[in-house]
Parts: sequence; structure tokens; C-alpha cells
Amino acid sequence: MGTPAVVLLSGGLDSTTVLAIAKSRGFDAYALSFRYGQRHAVELEAARRVASAIGVERHVVAEIDLRVFGGSSLTADIEVPKHDNAAELTSEIPVTYVPARNTIFLSFALAYAETVGAQDIFIGVNALDYSGYPDCRPEYIEAYERMANLATRAGVEGSSLTIHTPLIEMTKAQIVHAGLALGVDYGLTSSCYDPSVEGQPCGQCDSCLLRLKGFAEAGLPDPLVYRAA
Amino acid sequence: MGTPAVVLLSGGLDSTTVLAIAKSRGFDAYALSFRYGQRHAVELEAARRVASAIGVERHVVAEIDLRVFGGSSLTADIEVPKHDNAAELTSEIPVTYVPARNTIFLSFALAYAETVGAQDIFIGVNALDYSGYPDCRPEYIEAYERMANLATRAGVEGSSLTIHTPLIEMTKAQIVHAGLALGVDYGLTSSCYDPSVEGQPCGQCDSCLLRLKGFAEAGLPDPLVYRAA
Repeated sequence: MGTPAVVLLSGGLDSTTVLAIAKSRGFDAYALSFRYGQRHAVELEAARRVASAIGVERHVVAEIDLRVFGGSSLTADIEVPKHDNAAELTSEIPVTYVPARNTIFLSFALAYAETVGAQDIFIGVNALDYSGYPDCRPEYIEAYERMANLATRAGVEGSSLTIHTPLIEMTKAQIVHAGLALGVDYGLTSSCYDPSVEGQPCGQCDSCLLRLKGFAEAGLPDPLVYRAA
Repeated sequence: MGTPAVVLLSGGLDSTTVLAIAKSRGFDAYALSFRYGQRHAVELEAARRVASAIGVERHVVAEIDLRVFGGSSLTADIEVPKHDNAAELTSEIPVTYVPARNTIFLSFALAYAETVGAQDIFIGVNALDYSGYPDCRPEYIEAYERMANLATRAGVEGSSLTIHTPLIEMTKAQIVHAGLALGVDYGLTSSCYDPSVEGQPCGQCDSCLLRLKGFAEAGLPDPLVYRAA
């Protein structure tokens, strides 16, 4: 038996790569996904496929409803912005930003970690391609880790919790290369903010464009089939 | 219209007093309660009564299910510890501790605050009577506030978020006096970890004992009727 680690797993390209990295470092993975009122259950199906393919000790799907607060196109019923290409992406905070999302996700991961006795949490945040999300910056993660060590029994009892962000300084192309080197099948993943009911990605939202740019820069084909040209 | 503030409201003695304090400081209160798989919906009924009596702009009840992780008598089906009197309470972390609970609650408060444009969050944590909960200590709250200011648009845009803990250094007796001075009706509140179906408190759990000790030290009667002698 290895050391337990909680891995936040959305079923997208980044978190799938993170799961493979956590496993390659010898951790027993306890995957955690969220059903948070998002319009696309497609993401959760991808998370289940990925958890099964890469292998986890346990996969928990926590229900949280961020819709009670309103305020983002990923949870509310407003239009996901579309672009013709990645050059249109800006560094402003996008409307797809979910208030406090990573803070909520990490807080559930913290509860899970404490329950399974894990002192390691893996999250696929990325500071380069983060599209203006404040809660993807290294200084945020460091502050979260510091708070978490004061929040729990672990902190009181002298052991310490580490939040691992193996992708934080990587480009999407580097992420794709890292995952492929570990045998990740990106055909199982789902990154789109606005997939069809059948799960087909749009190819035009921020997330699809970043993903496609990553594969293009890596000089590799994306195994997914997009519905837009 | 006053300044908006999010107030975490369990419907217990502490959070009810905090709501009255937030209002007395001129804030428009946005109350936030949780249905988190706790056995006692009694608590939520108390929160609704209190929100209505004291007056809030809005009261949101967020559903979260901490049972998916297991691990505490407040959410799982294990016995709540009972004592004959408050002298038996220890400073060890009790089994009623819910992993990462305040971290999760504050994270939802942060999302709510961002959605309603609030820069102030009130929480009724108490460092004196905290019964060994690591996430009730001042250093934890300070670390949370620092993290929160890096997590959100507010932090990025230069404004700042404050977590108010007006009770943190108060004894239960002082809390009771403060609430009564603000006109709080403690007969509306519910503090018990193990109430009857009708909502009657047990008088023997950690929370009842701390509450009763507070009223006794304040030299005042608790308006609640307890089922134990």
C-alpha cells in the first residue's frame, strides 16, 4: 500500500494528467469530483472513465450547488463565450469564472484528506493558461496550504499537509507531453465548457481553445472530435 | 441601504448573537445556513426563525453532503457523547468535530459574498469555549482571510475582504449578555447536537453544557426547556 493522496479530478485534460502524475509518484489516489449544478454532466462521465482507466482507490463525487448564489455561466443559464481562435483570449477574469470555486473544491478535498488520513492533495491549477482566474495563482495555493495546516487535526498534531500543483508552471503543450509519457489516453477526457448532449466538444470556448492550442504546440493530434470546424 | 455582509447562521446561540451584532454595526445581512447531512433539521428551523426575527436581506440554505467522506458524529450515525456537567469537557478534539467544516462553510460564504458584492463575512467562532476544534482559533481565521483575499476578484482588484469574529475572545456569559443587550430572543435558537424530533435539547451534549454554563455564569435563565434534568 502506498501513501494516500486526494486528487481533484474534473475529467479534463489537466486534472487527468495530474492523476497520472500522482500515481507515478507512488501515491494511492483518492479521486474527488463535484456535481455542482454545472450544465454538463459530460464532465463527470469523463471523470469516471479516467478514474477507472488510470486506477484509483476510491472515487467520490460530492454534490454542491453553487447555483444558490448565481453569478457564472458555468452554473447559471447564460451564454458561454465563444471565440474563433485562442488569440482572442484575454487575461481578464472571464464570465466563466465561478466565485470561490477552487477554494470550495480544496475545502472538500481537505475534509476528504482528513477522513482517509492523507497529507497530500493534488490539484491541476495552471498559472500560465489560467485565463485570469485569481484562484489559480501560486500565491493563492501557498496561502491555502498555510490556512489548511491551521484548520485541521493534522495541523494541531504537528504533521503537515501539502498541496501539490504539478502543472502550475507548465504550458498546455508540456502538460500534453507529460501525460502522454505516462500513458494517458486523452480520448477519455472532456474539457469543453459547452459540450453537446452526446459529449461532443464545441471547439470554440476558452477551454477548448486552450486545449487545442496545447495539442497544436505539442505537434500532436487531439484524439477528441470537435463539432465546430 | 447599508453595506452588505454575509453572516454564517446555524441558528445556535453564537451565530444568532453574531447576526444581531452585524446588524447593530449597520450591515445589511445576507444569512447563510447549511443542510449538511446533519441529523437535526431542528437547527435549520431555528436559523429560519432567527433570520426572520432579526431581519435579513436574504437567507440562503446551501446543501452540502459531508457524509460522502464519513468521520464525525454530527453527520454520521454514531453516538453523540454525553456528560453530567461541563467540568467533564476536555480540550481534546472531540468526535463531534467535522473535518474541515469551518473551511467549507467559509468557502461557501466567500462565494456568496462575491456574488452579492459583500466584503465582510461574519462567523461566530469562539476560541475560549471551542472544545478543541482547530478551525476556531484566531490564527486559523487570519490565515483564512489572507487566503480569501488572494482567491477572489476582490483580491485581484485591490479591495479587501474581512472576516469578522466578534465572539472570538468572549465567554459564553459575555455572548449571552451581548445578545440580550441587542434584544436577541434566545428562545428562538437551537444549540443541541442531539435534539428530540420536536426540537427539545438534550442538556447533556458538549454544546448544551457550554450553553447552560454560559447562562449560569451570566446569572440568567436559558429560555429553552431541556428534556434532561
